[in-house]
Amino acid sequence: MNKQIILKNRPKGKPETSDFEFQNIDEPKIDAGEILLKTKYISVDPYLRGRMRDEESYIPPFQLEKPISSMVVAEVKDSQNKNFIPGDHVVGMLDWKLLQKNSGKNLRKISTDLAPFSAYLGVLGLTGLTAYLALETIGKLRKGETLLVSGAAGAVGSIVCQIGKIKGCHVVGIAGSDEKIQHIQEKFNVDNGINYKKTENMKDAISEKCPEGVDVYFDNVGGETLDAVLQNINKAARIINCGAISIYNETEVPTGPRPEGILIKKSALMQGFLVRDHESKYAEAMTQLGEWLKSGKLKYDETIKNGFENTPDAFISLFDGDNIGKMIVEI
Amino acid sequence: MNKQIILKNRPKGKPETSDFEFQNIDEPKIDAGEILLKTKYISVDPYLRGRMRDEESYIPPFQLEKPISSMVVAEVKDSQNKNFIPGDHVVGMLDWKLLQKNSGKNLRKISTDLAPFSAYLGVLGLTGLTAYLALETIGKLRKGETLLVSGAAGAVGSIVCQIGKIKGCHVVGIAGSDEKIQHIQEKFNVDNGINYKKTENMKDAISEKCPEGVDVYFDNVGGETLDAVLQNINKAARIINCGAISIYNETEVPTGPRPEGILIKKSALMQGFLVRDHESKYAEAMTQLGEWLKSGKLKYDETIKNGFENTPDAFISLFDGDNIGKMIVEI
Repeated sequence: MNKQIILKNRPKGKPETSDFEFQNIDEPKIDAGEILLKTKYISVDPYLRGRMRDEESYIPPFQLEKPISSMVVAEVKDSQNKNFIPGDHVVGMLDWKLLQKNSGKNLRKISTDLAPFSAYLGVLGLTGLTAYLALETIGKLRKGETLLVSGAAGAVGSIVCQIGKIKGCHVVGIAGSDEKIQHIQEKFNVDNGINYKKTENMKDAISEKCPEGVDVYFDNVGGETLDAVLQNINKAARIINCGAISIYNETEVPTGPRPEGILIKKSALMQGFLVRDHESKYAEAMTQLGEWLKSGKLKYDETIKNGFENTPDAFISLFDGDNIGKMIVEI
Repeated sequence: MNKQIILKNRPKGKPETSDFEFQNIDEPKIDAGEILLKTKYISVDPYLRGRMRDEESYIPPFQLEKPISSMVVAEVKDSQNKNFIPGDHVVGMLDWKLLQKNSGKNLRKISTDLAPFSAYLGVLGLTGLTAYLALETIGKLRKGETLLVSGAAGAVGSIVCQIGKIKGCHVVGIAGSDEKIQHIQEKFNVDNGINYKKTENMKDAISEKCPEGVDVYFDNVGGETLDAVLQNINKAARIINCGAISIYNETEVPTGPRPEGILIKKSALMQGFLVRDHESKYAEAMTQLGEWLKSGKLKYDETIKNGFENTPDAFISLFDGDNIGKMIVEI
């Protein structure tokens, strides 16, 4: 028997379990050139929230009554394609289905030589590429600068923090619990942390933890945290708008202090980053991430939920900050 | 007899005549190495409003009871400095005084070979440098792109529009009267214009006049105009935050829709620009501006007010949009 998860309703505000539906479907039959895939790991990511809206964006919206898709690690169970044999593992943009067929065209074969398969959804996948390439193309870290990271215990944030340390920066992480702060300091050598849930005045807290001001802010959350950071930026600061999880579920257009005055005063820049714009640099980035991983300079966390039936809940819990590192569903 | 204009009060909201005071002072006596300068033209600029606040910025605030300073063209009346002789004309950052002495160190000698002296406060001064260098370093115009300019009939904006046409862009200007729009279309070949004072829905108006979306927005005004532009930007758009005259006089922190969501969606950037960060490129920029001026590709407007006594009023009227092109006081 086969199953899939479809988008039943477009979420209003925070997604709910009832926005998704499980359906029993037939097991696919493969034709010449095709492969049969069994899902092993599913990546759930905050950006998927954007695709659940019915609006034009950098990637087309999910269709109602159609399966959700995201990055998935799958095992080849059957093959009529000369490039794949049963037992191969692949990663790619696939549907939330237990079994599916595929042409193999946009899939990449992966091995466990460097890291377990799940890592290809995180540090060796779009997560790691996002962290690395956003810092390379916008952050342009210089030794001795202060790098501030929000969502610092999250999938992208925790990689960003470590690259900051590798580059010789003073790295300060913002996260939502004392445990997360302690964890990123102990495991990733982050210099200092701010638990935003326990902080009344973020502007002052940032000023205290970043005594020389903020040179690069890697933003995964947007909103009021970004406002507070803007009041602490140095001349020629770079703000990487990578995510805005704090406003993804807003139903009205969120408002806040206008940034243009500060940007002018500080000759600072804010720039949106989408990893898909940088495909030409994936290979170079993967090589560097792989080297750091092999040498132990780069570590990573995963929060693994078990069972296909828990996929929607795993996604929804991202908005509660339940995860440390990459959130992955293991089937 | 000599006179100076001092800052009497720090303006609250829009500056008023009573924030300034005229004082009679002694005629300066020059010592060895010094020159005596007679003020000929005074540049009044929106950015001076920022220096009237008592807050840290990219340039120190004006002191109460002390003379205002800005870019000034002056004539050398007497000299004990071997680099200057009476009759020389110079441009530099000088006090609002009828007569003053100076070491000559940060002054540049100018001639009327290329343009009248007043042009060194505009198209051949910081105004032209701002337009040129902001487009070079942030705008990076490509042929066929759409360039939208606010304050398009103003000092910087009108130069920006013309450089956009030189670079082969579709140029749309935003200004505050039908006369200004007609003027920039006729004199500077701007493709299309929007009179924001007569436009109820700026978002729709921009969409209509920029049917292929906005690739580069040169922002001199900030505020709600910027909000409307953000809803019309293309993928990889560049927003140059050069000025924010619409919010300079605000007494509370102005708020508006948060930009981070759009910046992410469009991989767009917003970057503050201060011409003083780019002194190393002044010479190259001046050469190019001079060539365009000589060949007739670049034209410019001046709004000249006569009389030292009208300097504060000329400055204040910038916030009413009274000027076409560079606002200058002729003594």
